[in-house]
Amino acid sequence: MNKLSNSFLKFNYRNLFVSVLMVLCCMFDTAKAQTASWIWYPGDFDIWMSNVMQNRRTERGSFFPPFWKMDSHYVLVDFHKEFDLKKEEEVKLYVEGQYNVKIDGQAIAGFPKQIVIPAGKHKLSLKVYSQDKVPAIFVKGETVMSDDSWLTTFEDKEWIDASGKTSDKSGTTFVSVGSWNLTDPLTPPSAFKLPVRPMRATKVEKRKDGFIADFGKETFGFIKLHGVKGKGKLNIYYGESKEEAQSIEKCETLDLLELALSTKKDTIMPLSKAFRYINTAFDGDITVDSVSMLYEYAQVTEKGSFKSSDEELNQIYDISKYTFELNTREFFIDGIKRDRWVWSGDAYQSYLMNYYAYFDSPTVKRTLLAQRGKDPVTAHINTIMDYSFYWFLGIYDYYQYTGDKKFVADTYPRMKSLMDYVLNRRNKDGLLEWMPGDWIFIDWADKLSKEGEVSFEQLLFCRSLETMAMCAELSNDNVAAANYNKLAKELKAKIFSLYWDENKHALVHSRIAGQPTENVTRYANMFGIFFDYFSPAQKLEVKKHVLLNDQINKITTPYMRFYELEALCAMGEQAYVLKEMKNYWGGMLKLGATSFWEEYNPDKTGAEHFAMYGRPFGKSLCHAWGASPIYLLGKYYLGVKPLSPGYETYVVEPQLGGLQWIEGKVPTPSGDIAVYCSKKEIKVKSVAGTGTLKFKSKSKPVSKGAAIKEISKGLYEVTVEKNKAYVINYTSL
Amino acid sequence: MNKLSNSFLKFNYRNLFVSVLMVLCCMFDTAKAQTASWIWYPGDFDIWMSNVMQNRRTERGSFFPPFWKMDSHYVLVDFHKEFDLKKEEEVKLYVEGQYNVKIDGQAIAGFPKQIVIPAGKHKLSLKVYSQDKVPAIFVKGETVMSDDSWLTTFEDKEWIDASGKTSDKSGTTFVSVGSWNLTDPLTPPSAFKLPVRPMRATKVEKRKDGFIADFGKETFGFIKLHGVKGKGKLNIYYGESKEEAQSIEKCETLDLLELALSTKKDTIMPLSKAFRYINTAFDGDITVDSVSMLYEYAQVTEKGSFKSSDEELNQIYDISKYTFELNTREFFIDGIKRDRWVWSGDAYQSYLMNYYAYFDSPTVKRTLLAQRGKDPVTAHINTIMDYSFYWFLGIYDYYQYTGDKKFVADTYPRMKSLMDYVLNRRNKDGLLEWMPGDWIFIDWADKLSKEGEVSFEQLLFCRSLETMAMCAELSNDNVAAANYNKLAKELKAKIFSLYWDENKHALVHSRIAGQPTENVTRYANMFGIFFDYFSPAQKLEVKKHVLLNDQINKITTPYMRFYELEALCAMGEQAYVLKEMKNYWGGMLKLGATSFWEEYNPDKTGAEHFAMYGRPFGKSLCHAWGASPIYLLGKYYLGVKPLSPGYETYVVEPQLGGLQWIEGKVPTPSGDIAVYCSKKEIKVKSVAGTGTLKFKSKSKPVSKGAAIKEISKGLYEVTVEKNKAYVINYTSL
Repeated sequence: MNKLSNSFLKFNYRNLFVSVLMVLCCMFDTAKAQTASWIWYPGDFDIWMSNVMQNRRTERGSFFPPFWKMDSHYVLVDFHKEFDLKKEEEVKLYVEGQYNVKIDGQAIAGFPKQIVIPAGKHKLSLKVYSQDKVPAIFVKGETVMSDDSWLTTFEDKEWIDASGKTSDKSGTTFVSVGSWNLTDPLTPPSAFKLPVRPMRATKVEKRKDGFIADFGKETFGFIKLHGVKGKGKLNIYYGESKEEAQSIEKCETLDLLELALSTKKDTIMPLSKAFRYINTAFDGDITVDSVSMLYEYAQVTEKGSFKSSDEELNQIYDISKYTFELNTREFFIDGIKRDRWVWSGDAYQSYLMNYYAYFDSPTVKRTLLAQRGKDPVTAHINTIMDYSFYWFLGIYDYYQYTGDKKFVADTYPRMKSLMDYVLNRRNKDGLLEWMPGDWIFIDWADKLSKEGEVSFEQLLFCRSLETMAMCAELSNDNVAAANYNKLAKELKAKIFSLYWDENKHALVHSRIAGQPTENVTRYANMFGIFFDYFSPAQKLEVKKHVLLNDQINKITTPYMRFYELEALCAMGEQAYVLKEMKNYWGGMLKLGATSFWEEYNPDKTGAEHFAMYGRPFGKSLCHAWGASPIYLLGKYYLGVKPLSPGYETYVVEPQLGGLQWIEGKVPTPSGDIAVYCSKKEIKVKSVAGTGTLKFKSKSKPVSKGAAIKEISKGLYEVTVEKNKAYVINYTSL
Repeated sequence: MNKLSNSFLKFNYRNLFVSVLMVLCCMFDTAKAQTASWIWYPGDFDIWMSNVMQNRRTERGSFFPPFWKMDSHYVLVDFHKEFDLKKEEEVKLYVEGQYNVKIDGQAIAGFPKQIVIPAGKHKLSLKVYSQDKVPAIFVKGETVMSDDSWLTTFEDKEWIDASGKTSDKSGTTFVSVGSWNLTDPLTPPSAFKLPVRPMRATKVEKRKDGFIADFGKETFGFIKLHGVKGKGKLNIYYGESKEEAQSIEKCETLDLLELALSTKKDTIMPLSKAFRYINTAFDGDITVDSVSMLYEYAQVTEKGSFKSSDEELNQIYDISKYTFELNTREFFIDGIKRDRWVWSGDAYQSYLMNYYAYFDSPTVKRTLLAQRGKDPVTAHINTIMDYSFYWFLGIYDYYQYTGDKKFVADTYPRMKSLMDYVLNRRNKDGLLEWMPGDWIFIDWADKLSKEGEVSFEQLLFCRSLETMAMCAELSNDNVAAANYNKLAKELKAKIFSLYWDENKHALVHSRIAGQPTENVTRYANMFGIFFDYFSPAQKLEVKKHVLLNDQINKITTPYMRFYELEALCAMGEQAYVLKEMKNYWGGMLKLGATSFWEEYNPDKTGAEHFAMYGRPFGKSLCHAWGASPIYLLGKYYLGVKPLSPGYETYVVEPQLGGLQWIEGKVPTPSGDIAVYCSKKEIKVKSVAGTGTLKFKSKSKPVSKGAAIKEISKGLYEVTVEKNKAYVINYTSL
């Protein structure tokens, strides 16, 4: 009895010590290598969590799940690691699922929560079965810990012969486990939830049997009703606009409650929703004291920043950031009202914004893994041909920005099987066109032809093949790399021979029944620019005859404006793009937008702006793809981008685009690059890699302590070493 | 209030009526077409249930899961059917999972449990998300019911365009739903459990702090302790033999309980186990009043029967039936003590026994689907090369016995992808040999070579290709059928040119480094006989030089004895096989077997019989493959087998094999074929197809009302029409 009490006390002290230590670790963000974390089969938590997330969509109270295949985790998974212990070690085990534990292949009876591993070399294995949630383990001793150095498999093939000897010919393939920052043994992966914080409404209009509450701006979370009492119906109609909340018949989301509360009670809605306004309607004798919300958010850190001499532009940047914050959740989603799904084309833009905002790699990886799901590939990602390609491009960019070779190599087998699916769908000319099961999306645009072989799809296909070649090389699959390179080269040549129209000075939109059409659209042409597929002469032709040509159908979604403006920026048209941004995003702000929209057509008026998909409030007023100024301002005005993977080398090429001054920070894997630029002064400071500052000056630039090279007439370069502040005096053109 | 009560009463009356009707239906086994049942994506319940079942294995208290990939159901599934209703209909909905309901594509809010479908043509759809259990629905109206005429998909691709119009180009593939006899809306698939019935121990030996209970014979179920009280440890050690139950250190299964019961309580063990004996040991002040068990069994009907003039043979048949009963559970498993897994080679034999015992097609289909799992194929079935082939063979036989074209066509895509996996693993000579990840099993036998290209594997491969050709044809995939036929023919020719040894009069065991070995084993040679691959002359050579040759290594498992004896029966050696059966199975009976074993070697003595896999009680004393006399006696003594699929035509060729008389029944899809045969009289009566009775007679046979044809000297045939009794007087040779 006495002994039991003692050890209980000891145990508590140790727990306390561990807690204190963990707090310290969090405070100083150190000792990461020594932290145990929950581990699982790579991709499985991502897939499982995306099932949870994407099946939360409702439309007017009815469940609205995705229409593509949802995959599942492996239900039976083996984890192991070999340790060489200096002394015997006590190890705690936390497991999601039914499991066994083996030391050197010998099973321990029951479901032990604590084991002792003797000194010396030993292999610790746990095998876990779990159907409803992802098999996962958390192992914590003094040196024995679960982390991403463990190996895992979904088929261990540990068979024995008739004598009981375990086969040594099983040829099991082990891969690195998946993990994330889930470091609390008592919060297993299945219990993961985004944090919330309470927020109050800014204005509440009381009505007969209800009220309308305004939360001041677009927001996301769980409505909380305080002091609810009575018997009857209580309906909540959500609105991104006041019009929507007031439209009982047509608002997109709602909660219909039946209550019978004899004493006052607070009630939190079970599903998070997007709204600025809520409209409640009671009947019976229901009363409600007040309303608030629990704002739900992802724990990411704002690292990038931008400020300029133009207040409207600053506001566009800030609202972009807020729009992006709202759409950065368990994954990068499309929009917070609907669909709240993980769309590959949408997420691809979020990745790029992320590199100039949070530089949060885990959310990128999680989203890529969730989209890809499991083999076999039975359809394009989200069923959309273009979206399969954006997935490849997402990995291309991820590697450029982060330099994370391990993720590329780990993901390479999944890339290969998706590319096999694509390659198997080429037509006799080696091109891709619609086949049953395909959705050719491109953009939301009236009368956009999807017939025949669309040039835009071939361009994305070509870049995807280039991505495969790069990733095959990084994964040491040189035979495949050579083949992908060959396929990419052949396809690029074919694109130019089939679609480039000398008279139109552009790539035409498509080829139908073997004949190029006369139709010129912006899509392939703008991608051709920042993919660097055009010759310098072709770029200029395209700029004039397509990008700056009002005769070519306009783009009305921020989705494709992203690429259109990027193409113009890549051609040095920052001044033009600034005007466009102020018109387009500024246009939304003038209409009272507190976040940026799924689509914006300046020709529409009033509540017309809220309609889409044949529904008066079908449009989402907070769509991730509306936040692209984050990316454009970081990459093309502050002018920071990696030249080699992970910012080992990079360029800083500030462009005022007509502004008096700009300043901001761009995050990299090893810290921020800070840039300031006015018409007379450029300041750069970086903690990462080696940069090249490029700028033009009318005068001979001057700097204390920095070597300025004149590259050509009026064009200068300064090498930026890390942890050194550079100040250049110059005269902008 | 009044109205509510009325409708409540009405509702109860209707329920009562439905219950009565269902009882009537069950009693008369009619009106099946009008019964609603739970439906799911085909194969998904089977896969899910096999995960539940196969993860119940424990070894000395530690969880012992399979070592191959376990698949999962699709978590998001759409079900639909179009109805043409004469009048409006009220329909009840029961769903496993989160769901929506659409009539003609229009969603109904919430999770309705009852809907009204208007008169006329309408499409009813339910889309269900469920991660932990199989998405399943049960729909019941007057005419609108869930049954196997519904269609389903895991990717409905119901996307819309910007105007809200649903795509008409999605090209979704729908397949027939899976279902089974789960016709109770209140018992959903996830709640499925085998029934149990209580049984008492036949003898209980009290000991100090415990007791040993004997249940009289091998059995399976949940131990129930009655009137348990006290505080302390209570351990239960299970034994198929008394020796095992008494071996606290080495028995294979056990339950270790810690109790603190202040009043008497009955306790049922959570996991079912196999045993004849249990040995309990208590400490502290624990007392137990008595012990019983809940015998767990599958609801299958005994249809086949066999009886003869030989009492020992009758006992062998009865114990075989009991052995088979114990191993027929949610699936056909290998053994009830361990592994309780769905092994393809083991199940294949159960299928064949089943056709002469229960003729229970659902258990065959469920087992085949569970084994096959989902794509992608990452290993052979159960990781064993031979076991992939038995899976194909299982479908071949299933079609021969049942004539169920629908199952073949539904399963054909899964057959194709498994065969693709196999074809991709051929070596440069088009043969199969070990590759990393493969287990070449063949049989449990000492020093059995698995090196090089084993002839046995090529034979199974060839038969699998023939199966593919047959199933491709049944699925109208004629191009594939021609290709599989060609591959099979080429392979068969190669087998004979590489392995047939004129001097050995047999197929040799293998080819190593391009050279045939000198080694002759029974495996390929016995399969060659009943596959009918040999010429008549070769058959005789093989019989003499292999099957009846004591110099060739003996077979010690009932598993391969099955095929050995089948080959001999196919050669007309019933008299020899009868002696072998009496020796081998009779040998186990003499040792007190109450069910047949995993392995039996007459040279061993005492407790040596219980050892295997290097463990003193590692052997299973109740293994499905021990029950093969069921099959041999039905097929080769009663002599009944289908000639065309589903017994449309069949043969009855009774063989006494030295017995005075035999009689029995063989089930078919349309009813039983009853056969009696003595040395002077043959009686046949059938309710199925058209049979051909074949027999030899020394005298000219006589029958009232049956035309007897003499086919050749002393060999006679009678055409057996259904529902007509035939009595033939003859004189056996």
